[in-house]
Amino acid sequence: MEGKLYGVGVGPGEAELMTIKAKRILDQVPIIAVPVKSIGEDSTALNIIKEIIDIKEKEILEVEFSMDKNKEKREASRKNAINLIKDKLKEGKDIAMITLGDVSIYSTYMYINNSIKEAGYLTEIIPGITSFSAIAAKAQISLAEGNETLAIIPAVKDNTNLAEIFRSYDNVVMMKAAGSIKNINQCLEENFKDYSALVASKCGFEDEYIGKVDLERENSYFTTMIIKKGGTK
Amino acid sequence: MEGKLYGVGVGPGEAELMTIKAKRILDQVPIIAVPVKSIGEDSTALNIIKEIIDIKEKEILEVEFSMDKNKEKREASRKNAINLIKDKLKEGKDIAMITLGDVSIYSTYMYINNSIKEAGYLTEIIPGITSFSAIAAKAQISLAEGNETLAIIPAVKDNTNLAEIFRSYDNVVMMKAAGSIKNINQCLEENFKDYSALVASKCGFEDEYIGKVDLERENSYFTTMIIKKGGTK
Repeated sequence: MEGKLYGVGVGPGEAELMTIKAKRILDQVPIIAVPVKSIGEDSTALNIIKEIIDIKEKEILEVEFSMDKNKEKREASRKNAINLIKDKLKEGKDIAMITLGDVSIYSTYMYINNSIKEAGYLTEIIPGITSFSAIAAKAQISLAEGNETLAIIPAVKDNTNLAEIFRSYDNVVMMKAAGSIKNINQCLEENFKDYSALVASKCGFEDEYIGKVDLERENSYFTTMIIKKGGTK
Repeated sequence: MEGKLYGVGVGPGEAELMTIKAKRILDQVPIIAVPVKSIGEDSTALNIIKEIIDIKEKEILEVEFSMDKNKEKREASRKNAINLIKDKLKEGKDIAMITLGDVSIYSTYMYINNSIKEAGYLTEIIPGITSFSAIAAKAQISLAEGNETLAIIPAVKDNTNLAEIFRSYDNVVMMKAAGSIKNINQCLEENFKDYSALVASKCGFEDEYIGKVDLERENSYFTTMIIKKGGTK
């Protein structure tokens, strides 16, 4: 019988924030697929599960998702990833591909899932704690209450819509915000005195920062801003 | 020494979708606080944890959050809840208050947390899997990819902003949507032929429904719609 592919969200960084189901699946599969930008690269998701899962007896299958500017190279890399996985599934082995945070929010896993599913294999997705839920928990603030609305926005490339977003939504989670903090802060200071902004960098890791905007600070790629109308309560 | 209050997200319905941390905290506290609309009411959150946590030796503290139309009655009920919790904390007992899904997304727990924290007690929040992550996982769709945006919107009371929301966001999660499915569907059919809509009712429970819009169907209070530009991939 052919193997099954699981997409497993391992949560935002703290190993204990994995679900019981994620742990069970990772304990039971013989192969753990680890998405990397280039083979041999250190994987944050793998480091997280190592704290809880015994991977000694498992096959770790590095799966390259090239971020090359050349589209053909990126597509060739994805095709190769899918073929690697298919070969193992054909051998009857179950595979769990791990992904940081939740699988449905900005994860490249969905592309693999759809291709494998369309090829007729069984697939299953195990959701994970999102970075924004973990940050809100750490900071002890809500993301939305009562009838409030919430917008989840990835890295802002330009500043044109920013004021409109803040005007339309009670709360805004700005993901991959490291490069945009200055713009966002300026927009808030100029237009929205009653807003509060929280910056969270590498939440759940040893070098995490959760606090006010600090324009002097060098922030990691994993930086999120939470902006709330009327301030954080 | 005074006790500590934990706010624990127990996830969307499937007991195994609790985090390892949530299980550890619930295993270790002597008191589990259960928010209810009226004393004696059946609690979905309590039913979920019962599958995994041995509650025989625990004190179950029902905490009433009145939904009475009278504001004074609602406030009196909240004050009473806070006093109940404070009394136990003063006795040096740790308490975990359970909440469905994630603690930061539309949970009444935050009100309790802030009051208890302001009164000088230790508080900690354990995030949970949100209903929309669980639904996306079950339906094997993404909520946001690449540079896409995501809006989380609670029950729509009127139809005026609906088209604008769908125009501004790549993906929209409409929570507590049971009463609005007809309006939403009409708006999509009239304005957005390239959108797809998924209805999820009681995801993770035995009587779950995840599928297309069915205007004949009676949906539960726990109904969510996921609307994606260009259809679900």
